[in-house]
Amino acid sequence: MKNNDIMQNLTFNADGLIPAIAQASGSGEVLMLAWMNREAIETTLRTGNVTYFSRSRQALWRKGESSGNIQKLVEMRGDCDGDTLLLTVDQIGPACHTGKANCFFNPMFP
Amino acid sequence: MKNNDIMQNLTFNADGLIPAIAQASGSGEVLMLAWMNREAIETTLRTGNVTYFSRSRQALWRKGESSGNIQKLVEMRGDCDGDTLLLTVDQIGPACHTGKANCFFNPMFP
Repeated sequence: MKNNDIMQNLTFNADGLIPAIAQASGSGEVLMLAWMNREAIETTLRTGNVTYFSRSRQALWRKGESSGNIQKLVEMRGDCDGDTLLLTVDQIGPACHTGKANCFFNPMFP
Repeated sequence: MKNNDIMQNLTFNADGLIPAIAQASGSGEVLMLAWMNREAIETTLRTGNVTYFSRSRQALWRKGESSGNIQKLVEMRGDCDGDTLLLTVDQIGPACHTGKANCFFNPMFP
């Protein structure tokens, strides 16, 4: 099974989670970072709708399930040591729950 | 102190770490994800050379200290809930220890 192979090459943390970076297709804008467990990855690959694991709710979280601001999966890649995912997505609406286009709006430097 | 303000708005995990995404200035290529502690952030802001915390070595890790493939900090931003950093960097040479330009070369989808 391709999916099993994929999972075997990933390293999950003690909580069974792996960080996933969402990057906008086309613009390359980094939208957000969230976490996935095995089920979130499988659900994302099966449905094409990016699904994370909410650490606060301790439940699967289909991005946009309440706001409608879904992410359609374009590409998923793992990194060299299999402990981070990079998702290329088509983002519908703003990515951030604050209503901003992406979550990285707090300047620290310069 | 500006730096103290910055730190107060960040949430570190139980190990005192926060994930940091490095994105190439200009191209927007996502290069890698690594981790920072407070000292790594302070060192990066003070020197302009991106410095992470190596979880395997449990020590500060100035990116490129052995390979020469350093990252010069261009911009640092925190996310909406202060638990992820996005670094815009000028990457000298390849970002990945494998010699590849970035760490995300393992395709999972499509």
